Amino acid sequence: MPHIALNNDLPGITGLMVHRPDTGGPLGDLANALLRAPSSLEPGERELIAAYVSRLNDTEFCASSHGAFAASQLAGGRELVRDVLVDPGTAPISGRLRALLGVAAEVQSSARPVSDRAIEAARVEGADDTDLHDTVLIAAAFCMYNRYVSGLATELPKDDEYYEHATRRIVMDGYRSGIVQGD
Amino acid sequence: MPHIALNNDLPGITGLMVHRPDTGGPLGDLANALLRAPSSLEPGERELIAAYVSRLNDTEFCASSHGAFAASQLAGGRELVRDVLVDPGTAPISGRLRALLGVAAEVQSSARPVSDRAIEAARVEGADDTDLHDTVLIAAAFCMYNRYVSGLATELPKDDEYYEHATRRIVMDGYRSGIVQGD
Repeated sequence: MPHIALNNDLPGITGLMVHRPDTGGPLGDLANALLRAPSSLEPGERELIAAYVSRLNDTEFCASSHGAFAASQLAGGRELVRDVLVDPGTAPISGRLRALLGVAAEVQSSARPVSDRAIEAARVEGADDTDLHDTVLIAAAFCMYNRYVSGLATELPKDDEYYEHATRRIVMDGYRSGIVQGD
Repeated sequence: MPHIALNNDLPGITGLMVHRPDTGGPLGDLANALLRAPSSLEPGERELIAAYVSRLNDTEFCASSHGAFAASQLAGGRELVRDVLVDPGTAPISGRLRALLGVAAEVQSSARPVSDRAIEAARVEGADDTDLHDTVLIAAAFCMYNRYVSGLATELPKDDEYYEHATRRIVMDGYRSGIVQGD
């Protein structure tokens, strides 16, 4: 049972964002800017970073939903996402993405500066300043989203259909519109 | 030296937000909604939660700046803020705020659900659902802001005057306007 009463029965962060549109609006705008807007990393790669950080934080709701969004946008589909969530070190991804997942893991583990070694490893694989900025902020943002949704003990969706429906909605409409409608 | 090149010399998160207005906009809007908009907790109490979480994350830039904003809005001023950052257990604050700082500390430490015990302790002291929501989301958000500003190894301000100037600006204009202008 959630720690606070909500004005709706929607699961996970969706229920919180509909309950509190004052904070839900900026949270949705941030997700759109980070995961959907044009940037140097593909949307599928950015969703994968979000899913991986959520898995490291043991936040099943976010790992499953962003894993499903990533799978819908990457050629390797669900199998690739599953492999990355188990071990990015052996998953069949580019060296650049593997190194950026290493940067994301450092951000997840503490608020210390990312090590020069991890930054250099990503640069050697071709990562530029925009890749590094987006990776650090996506990882940092999911340390927030994960804590928000788990900290308040929100309900998990009752079936897998939720994630498939949410995937279609997010891919079509982006984060804010879908979440604020809450359908 | 920061891990990435910025288009300005502003310190801390300010430099990042000016460099990337696409993400800086929602980050500023979220800070305004959490810390400045009318809510059940006073702005000074919310700034204190932000400063305390930043101190737990060892992020000096955010702890100092939000500590200064809190001091400017709380009757106890700098001395009270210093006492809270050292130990909320003995600082002269209300039982409600002390219990909410306990909730914030749990959010800072992991993305697990806040314990029933911490939630109950806050309710016994008079905390309501809005207090609990805002405390959890402020603590979660500063786990993001702290990681963003530290992860990319941004520069710290060179003197204390920065914090006093920033305080006047934030208190007058709020987060987004001041940060996006970057003055």
